[in-house]
Amino acid sequence: MIAGRDCSNCGKASPASGTILDLKYKLKKSFTTVRFSILLLTPVAWTAEMVAFSTLEKPSSSPTPPTHTLYIATSKKLPLLFKNNKAKISYFCIMANSLRICSSSSTTTALLNLRAPSSLALSDSPGSDSGLGSISFPLKSLKFSTRQVLKPPHRTTKLVVKATEVDISLSPKVNSIKPSKTVAIADQATALVQAGVPVIRLATGEPDFDTPAPITEAAKNAIREGYTRYTPNAGTLEIRQAICHKLKEENGISYTPDQILVSNGAKQSCVQAVMAVCSPGDEVIISAPYWVSYPEMARMADAKPVILPTKISENFLLDPKALESKLTEKSRLLILCSPSDPTGSVYPKRLLEEIAQIVAKHPRLLVLSDECYEHIIFAPATHTSFASLPGMWERTLTVNGFSKAFAMTGWRLGYLAGPKHFVSACGKIQSQFTSGASSISQKAGVAALGLGYAGGEAVSIMVKAFRERRDFLVKSFGELEGVKLSEPEGAFYLFIDFSSYYGTEVEGFGKIENSESLCRYLLDEGTGCTSPGRCIRG
Amino acid sequence: MIAGRDCSNCGKASPASGTILDLKYKLKKSFTTVRFSILLLTPVAWTAEMVAFSTLEKPSSSPTPPTHTLYIATSKKLPLLFKNNKAKISYFCIMANSLRICSSSSTTTALLNLRAPSSLALSDSPGSDSGLGSISFPLKSLKFSTRQVLKPPHRTTKLVVKATEVDISLSPKVNSIKPSKTVAIADQATALVQAGVPVIRLATGEPDFDTPAPITEAAKNAIREGYTRYTPNAGTLEIRQAICHKLKEENGISYTPDQILVSNGAKQSCVQAVMAVCSPGDEVIISAPYWVSYPEMARMADAKPVILPTKISENFLLDPKALESKLTEKSRLLILCSPSDPTGSVYPKRLLEEIAQIVAKHPRLLVLSDECYEHIIFAPATHTSFASLPGMWERTLTVNGFSKAFAMTGWRLGYLAGPKHFVSACGKIQSQFTSGASSISQKAGVAALGLGYAGGEAVSIMVKAFRERRDFLVKSFGELEGVKLSEPEGAFYLFIDFSSYYGTEVEGFGKIENSESLCRYLLDEGTGCTSPGRCIRG
Repeated sequence: MIAGRDCSNCGKASPASGTILDLKYKLKKSFTTVRFSILLLTPVAWTAEMVAFSTLEKPSSSPTPPTHTLYIATSKKLPLLFKNNKAKISYFCIMANSLRICSSSSTTTALLNLRAPSSLALSDSPGSDSGLGSISFPLKSLKFSTRQVLKPPHRTTKLVVKATEVDISLSPKVNSIKPSKTVAIADQATALVQAGVPVIRLATGEPDFDTPAPITEAAKNAIREGYTRYTPNAGTLEIRQAICHKLKEENGISYTPDQILVSNGAKQSCVQAVMAVCSPGDEVIISAPYWVSYPEMARMADAKPVILPTKISENFLLDPKALESKLTEKSRLLILCSPSDPTGSVYPKRLLEEIAQIVAKHPRLLVLSDECYEHIIFAPATHTSFASLPGMWERTLTVNGFSKAFAMTGWRLGYLAGPKHFVSACGKIQSQFTSGASSISQKAGVAALGLGYAGGEAVSIMVKAFRERRDFLVKSFGELEGVKLSEPEGAFYLFIDFSSYYGTEVEGFGKIENSESLCRYLLDEGTGCTSPGRCIRG
Repeated sequence: MIAGRDCSNCGKASPASGTILDLKYKLKKSFTTVRFSILLLTPVAWTAEMVAFSTLEKPSSSPTPPTHTLYIATSKKLPLLFKNNKAKISYFCIMANSLRICSSSSTTTALLNLRAPSSLALSDSPGSDSGLGSISFPLKSLKFSTRQVLKPPHRTTKLVVKATEVDISLSPKVNSIKPSKTVAIADQATALVQAGVPVIRLATGEPDFDTPAPITEAAKNAIREGYTRYTPNAGTLEIRQAICHKLKEENGISYTPDQILVSNGAKQSCVQAVMAVCSPGDEVIISAPYWVSYPEMARMADAKPVILPTKISENFLLDPKALESKLTEKSRLLILCSPSDPTGSVYPKRLLEEIAQIVAKHPRLLVLSDECYEHIIFAPATHTSFASLPGMWERTLTVNGFSKAFAMTGWRLGYLAGPKHFVSACGKIQSQFTSGASSISQKAGVAALGLGYAGGEAVSIMVKAFRERRDFLVKSFGELEGVKLSEPEGAFYLFIDFSSYYGTEVEGFGKIENSESLCRYLLDEGTGCTSPGRCIRG
């Protein structure tokens, strides 16, 4: 596509004066989407990591003139090599349409040694076909030094790309948030499925059952009866009363409807609670392995996630002494999840009581108790709501939802229960973020809570199946050499220690180095989609 | 309930030594819910505004011992009058169960002149039965001076209330967010309706039509077919393709599905866009009258709302010169809403082109174009999408939804379209906040977009009705003396200037002082629920 001297290592076009002129020509001729790389001056070799790229994107039928948004991205640590002259980007060095640039020790292609502004932060790559993280920054904020000027072979070469001066910077907070890794893996599996590969999807926390019929009937009735208007922000009084009844009967905790906030899924219930109570600099205590979203929720509140590791030999349960040693004046929120995503561990009542005694000593410490997997529990294990323990009602924010127990993931319905002061604050966030949940889903939720104690027969059928699958998997993996696991007492996850396999060389794949490459191997070879523990354990 | 000298003005119990001892006794005896006021030392008289209150709340069947969360709230400017001695609250002065305390010039009840910490910020009142704003703060952060000590009649009186030391502070950001005033008015109307008063509800922006049948049929089918699982975070490919098709055909803007993000309502689309692009200190330009949520969205992003007033004589349309004069280096986002909530104004294409020329001069300035009322427009007025204007595609975030045009408020479905870099960032927020929208609502949304150009017959029937109602109201109000209005060309709102009535004394009601008291008057006397312009105009 673009002429130039080929790189002696990989045969790809390497930067040369011809390259630039040719690309200029190409741009003039068509102005459709052109993707190219900007080379970087680095003290070492060029590698893919050291490459910035830019997209000249002209929507095929956009009525805009041939001026283009310029997206620029680079690795965090590296200085950027180009000059931004107001609306014009000039004097930069371009390579062919690829990010897989071979190594080379040449740095003579440097044109201007331009330092990226200090405010750069790692973000998502705007180009999904690039595996690189990227950095965005305002074009205007770039400063350049003129010490290093054009040298052969670029002495006289110029490329002028007109770019509209759009500042594509993102807020520092958004840059600091990591996209969900479990979502990324699920997307990769989706891509394989769309390509016709039969993938066994084991990565997403979603029951494979259909939503029970009494629930779907209620939803269809709600639609039929025109129950399709805004509900109050906190949820209908009907569902909040049903939730109060459930929490009293099943969990032994008393709430009034104004202490309940219904949201678009329990994820929203959690993040709003974290945002409401955490001030910048506060610490959020999370035991690992953890649900990948918890630390990001802390970051969204400008708080700091503090990770407390647990041991497989202790069933991944939090050690109260380890907890006590980590608590400081900054500790604001302890997140507990029982039954646990992703280990399936169930906290025994006695252990929760020990934790409660420690919590009681710390006036600033609140507890977010995520009880979404409450009903998916295997006897003799039993569920204890943290708010039901002496002295804990006042400082506990209880989160629960409908997705897991009632196979209602697509309905987006969860709730928070807690002291009114906190619940009102969460409601204020929700009123400005989404308003209330779907009116139809709320009617479905009322029907779900009407299924009987702990979801009645409909839920117990699913729990029985989850238990059988757990038994099968625990037995099967237990027979594998070098595999360690802790038998889950709830939820539908298995958190397995495969570390004895790390370092193994597999023909046609390479070395299995860690949980991520193991998952890639399983997806490539066995077409089983699993989640790497590394992104769960942090 | 509590003994004490009665106030000579209103007959209510006023603070006296007996008061405190009696309450102590009462507390010891029952420990159910007790609400009381803490008096404040003020340089002037006591008024309701100068009262802090506290709730001793013991959930009726909570297993907690008789220790209690203490909620404290006060007016922003006033020092607080009590001493906090670690876990014990002592030496304070208590009045009867009411916030409607009469005026009094006595300040002799002062016990200790306790200054509230400087970090106090105005927030929601935790007690919904109080009309006051309130302030929450960590008990621990209170400092007190010992200069002003106990004086008669409180010399020897003590009250010890054991309180669990729970820090009920909220994050400063949450404190800074105002709850939605339109929601508050809607709630007041709901209370009247529940009390049997036939209220004519004109305050909430919600069509009174049912969701069209082809849409509800599609939703029922989706439920029947078990379409009840998680969708991708950005929405199903099916709905994103349908949205791209709609934007191309109806709006002349080209997007690919990866430039679309489907959310739980257009409100979420807006707030995520604001949060993604605004850094702390950035300015968000909003023309008044505005949708009440816009300034709060700016605050959620730590950005500053900059309000640009418009004139009724200019149909509430933004004056490009006024806009230009307000733009600075900090200007990051201009929010446009056409057809406008709450004025119904429709921006003519020529005016939008003028605005685009100004926007083009400011590299940092992006535009959030809220086009939710696009289909509710009255010929000869026509809708122009801002992103379709030359050079604006790259810097425009287009928001649209299903609620208004398709009478789908309860379904919670909206979307954002824009350059992928921004849309991806919004998607990242969404992945950690709510995940994707309801799978059932998304199927309904696909059916809505399949109704035909601009919603086809189903939508045009509703638009015709809205037009007839507009004509009727414009004519009726036009006949009223002293009333000014601008005939709306779209949406379903009427923004009326009643200011010539302000100052009018109404028998049995009092003086109509402003739009808020006018709305209260209409709700009290005419049982019509309207929204005061004051909370819309800021």
